[in-house]
Amino acid sequence: MSMIKTAAELEAWCRSVDRRNKTLGFVPTMGYLHEGHCSLIKAAKSQNGLVVASVFVNPTQFAPGEDFESYPRDIGRDYKLAREAGADVVFNPEVGEIYVPGSSTVIEVTGNITKKLCGASRPTHFEGVTTIVSILFNIVRPDNAYFGQKDAQQALIIKKMVRDLHIPVEVIVCPIVREMDGLAMSSRNVYLNPEERKQATCLNVGLQKAAEYLASGAVDCRSVTRLTEIIESHIHSRDLAVIDYVKILDGETLDDITAIEPGKTALAAVAVKFGKTRLIDNRVLSI
Amino acid sequence: MSMIKTAAELEAWCRSVDRRNKTLGFVPTMGYLHEGHCSLIKAAKSQNGLVVASVFVNPTQFAPGEDFESYPRDIGRDYKLAREAGADVVFNPEVGEIYVPGSSTVIEVTGNITKKLCGASRPTHFEGVTTIVSILFNIVRPDNAYFGQKDAQQALIIKKMVRDLHIPVEVIVCPIVREMDGLAMSSRNVYLNPEERKQATCLNVGLQKAAEYLASGAVDCRSVTRLTEIIESHIHSRDLAVIDYVKILDGETLDDITAIEPGKTALAAVAVKFGKTRLIDNRVLSI
Repeated sequence: MSMIKTAAELEAWCRSVDRRNKTLGFVPTMGYLHEGHCSLIKAAKSQNGLVVASVFVNPTQFAPGEDFESYPRDIGRDYKLAREAGADVVFNPEVGEIYVPGSSTVIEVTGNITKKLCGASRPTHFEGVTTIVSILFNIVRPDNAYFGQKDAQQALIIKKMVRDLHIPVEVIVCPIVREMDGLAMSSRNVYLNPEERKQATCLNVGLQKAAEYLASGAVDCRSVTRLTEIIESHIHSRDLAVIDYVKILDGETLDDITAIEPGKTALAAVAVKFGKTRLIDNRVLSI
Repeated sequence: MSMIKTAAELEAWCRSVDRRNKTLGFVPTMGYLHEGHCSLIKAAKSQNGLVVASVFVNPTQFAPGEDFESYPRDIGRDYKLAREAGADVVFNPEVGEIYVPGSSTVIEVTGNITKKLCGASRPTHFEGVTTIVSILFNIVRPDNAYFGQKDAQQALIIKKMVRDLHIPVEVIVCPIVREMDGLAMSSRNVYLNPEERKQATCLNVGLQKAAEYLASGAVDCRSVTRLTEIIESHIHSRDLAVIDYVKILDGETLDDITAIEPGKTALAAVAVKFGKTRLIDNRVLSI
């Protein structure tokens, strides 16, 4: 496996490998890989002859005051994990390699899909995400690209960008990978102290309780207000948890809905702070 | 030569032709082809084994009240001219083929380069241009793409977008093609009545006078204020001409400059209205 630092080297690698009858799978990450990322690399490996994983902590998706500088980094470990999971190349560019001097082009998916949920708390975040993903797609030129359902809103936005701009890449969204106790894997979990870590399972449990209530058939079981209350009240039962949002929205457009409708998917999504650490989780609801 | 209406057909054509050792040249146009467009197709033909020209009047680069509906169209004539100039395919999609239902993704090059000149008069224009060019690049996937220097600001913006987003396309800018009397060719010239048509040469002549004054070596010959006055006063001498702008700016960034500096290029650009018809022209100045 190779570690590649520049776009020119990556293009040279692409030219040097035999791509006949081999598709290229791509897994963009911000590094500090966990089993969630590795599951994406494994999925890519199982579906493509060649796999590139990128490790790039993208400054433009962090707002001032967010954790760009302190975001956990360990490229040596990432390299080892990516190789074990099946990556042929780890692309680990410098910021200046991706954003050329004077760079000022942005890609924005407009509408509710970027304004709701994390877009409300982090207004410039998704513009940074869509711009970097598009740049990486242009450099790597994959056939298939893999994203985690953990970042459900990001996955919806990238699928929309790809569709709207006719980007010739297939976007594949893989299931959330969880710790034994149900906490969704995240690079930011390392920030949690032992008590926060223990309470952090409330995101998943709250979502689970909503899904159970929906399945119960109770008279108000499809009510978004009722289901939201169930999630909120469980999270509130943990004293270190501070809710950023608990929302149930249309599962494609993120438009507001009042009830779970048969044949349509809804996305129940939560963001909760433990101290300075902001965690997200979600669950697709349908009947 | 083929006329292709859908992205799927174009992809099928791309797969069906032998692209080994053949590059693909692409000429995006809004149709109503004139010799300027044909010069781009000929340039593409001379440098590529395969040439695709697109004819698509892009609604998103027109503001409400601009001439989208009335923009001149003649696809039969375009098809014939494109074939004669050397195109292998004319791609002529419907609006709904390019902009899928609910489409809401935009690409914006921010900064002076889009805010000045036509960006000041037409604030949403270049966002429409960069978005459609990017979509067409994603569908056609050319090696080389050809744009006219007539739309100098557009060419600078597209080059910047391609550089900023690492789009794997070479952008080639071809010289302005002019009528016998010096008027820059434009699909909009058909709007002019005979007297307006006669006076419309003032854009080119004004620019020429500025270039001559710069070359004269006069003590203030490099002054942007002086050179701008020379252009303005010539255009004002034509009674039907209403100046939208006359500007001399840095030839790459479109930042303000006060003098033409040795070793740097400046762009002298003008937009002038004759009745409802808005014409543009430009000239690169350097010493």
